[in-house]
Amino acid sequence: MVEPVETPLAASNPRVKQLRRLSRRSERSERRLFLADGPKAVEGALAAGCVVEVLVRPDALGLVPDLPAGVRRTLVDDRALAALSDSVSPAGVVAVCRFVDVELDRALTEDSRLVAVCADVRDPGNAGTVVRCADAAGADSVVLAGSSVDLYNPKTLRASVGSAFHLPVSVEPDPAAAVRAAQAAGLVVLAADGAGEVDLFEADELLARPTAWLFGNEARGLPEDLAALADHRVAIPIHGRAESLNLSTAAALCLYASARAQRS
Amino acid sequence: MVEPVETPLAASNPRVKQLRRLSRRSERSERRLFLADGPKAVEGALAAGCVVEVLVRPDALGLVPDLPAGVRRTLVDDRALAALSDSVSPAGVVAVCRFVDVELDRALTEDSRLVAVCADVRDPGNAGTVVRCADAAGADSVVLAGSSVDLYNPKTLRASVGSAFHLPVSVEPDPAAAVRAAQAAGLVVLAADGAGEVDLFEADELLARPTAWLFGNEARGLPEDLAALADHRVAIPIHGRAESLNLSTAAALCLYASARAQRS
Repeated sequence: MVEPVETPLAASNPRVKQLRRLSRRSERSERRLFLADGPKAVEGALAAGCVVEVLVRPDALGLVPDLPAGVRRTLVDDRALAALSDSVSPAGVVAVCRFVDVELDRALTEDSRLVAVCADVRDPGNAGTVVRCADAAGADSVVLAGSSVDLYNPKTLRASVGSAFHLPVSVEPDPAAAVRAAQAAGLVVLAADGAGEVDLFEADELLARPTAWLFGNEARGLPEDLAALADHRVAIPIHGRAESLNLSTAAALCLYASARAQRS
Repeated sequence: MVEPVETPLAASNPRVKQLRRLSRRSERSERRLFLADGPKAVEGALAAGCVVEVLVRPDALGLVPDLPAGVRRTLVDDRALAALSDSVSPAGVVAVCRFVDVELDRALTEDSRLVAVCADVRDPGNAGTVVRCADAAGADSVVLAGSSVDLYNPKTLRASVGSAFHLPVSVEPDPAAAVRAAQAAGLVVLAADGAGEVDLFEADELLARPTAWLFGNEARGLPEDLAALADHRVAIPIHGRAESLNLSTAAALCLYASARAQRS
């Protein structure tokens, strides 16, 4: 028996047009679906078990691994794939995925040892890099709090290089609620604050405790009322003439200082 | 006596058109001039003594500090300023500056304690962030080696947030020459390498020595023949499931680990 030839869907196909609307945060939030773009992201999403459907250009079929039962594979043409990808040169495969974020009480538990809480982080590259660094440093989870950028923004996902699928991420509109939940779970909350009274590299005893790091907005830092809820404010020493560090390098230094103190 | 009213130069003015060509690397290299965009960059350039001329929109005159003798101030209109700026919403002030990079033997001296050498780093945001982190960590200098992105690319300068004017930066086409110069100056050369045999956080004795860190390309890392010239290869431990860290966070961790070991 000859298999019927599957015709790739065109960009004008109603379902492609509907999926394309997932480029908008409002549409993603309403449907709790997002698009994972490129073979690495699709692989991560498949491993996380959140893939509903894989859309692929015929010439990119080799990039698609064996799909588990229940995950549909659909051919799309060049223009349709380009419409679904936010990449300048799309690799040829995109997955429709269910949201993976977890409730706050699953991100902040009594077993948590190291957590990153981002309050009002707006740049998707920064948010994704913090998720990646948290994963690398062995953190248990990340909380995107307040008006932080969307975890499912394609740029956030790309900067996380798969880490958005590796560790639990929670989305919490109220940063103060995240701080209180961390404290209730027995974590010490450390605000990363250039004017902090504790020197990051002279605080190993403090850092060895189960910790939630609190990182603020790229331009404005942490709002005073939020920083005041933290148990301590910790500064990265600036030895030269730079005024500060950028958010993702500061987060990397804080998270790895904790990892070092907790594992030594 | 009434001062003659200065007419702002238009975008069509031949001198504005000539300066606009400084957006090209080839033009910058030939004339050894570049444009510093925005009040922070102009302030840094003035402090570094490299400014030839300040071009300013009439409404932004308040952003221009008192200029030293010999630095001309020129009014330009809206469109002319926009043509000279690479910013989406230009602040209104741009400085024409002389190149500030130094010879290799001034970046790598027997007094050097901590140096960052970037080999083939291509993203201007990464290169600028490494310069900023090196400054913050108290490093003595940075070397942009091989096919690294131009220090005077507006995106590099912006990511450095003034640090390109704070510490000596050298541009060296041959990365191996930079490594040999570092070793000749008595520095131990440490290659940042995910597969390195030394754990960054278990090497304080090594890190306490005067050090040149060698960082490679974002996608490909360090070429094997270059890494082989280093005295040791040092890895940042990955505790979670991330495959790696991005270049600027890795550089921040390495440079601060050195600062911590050298200053303790």
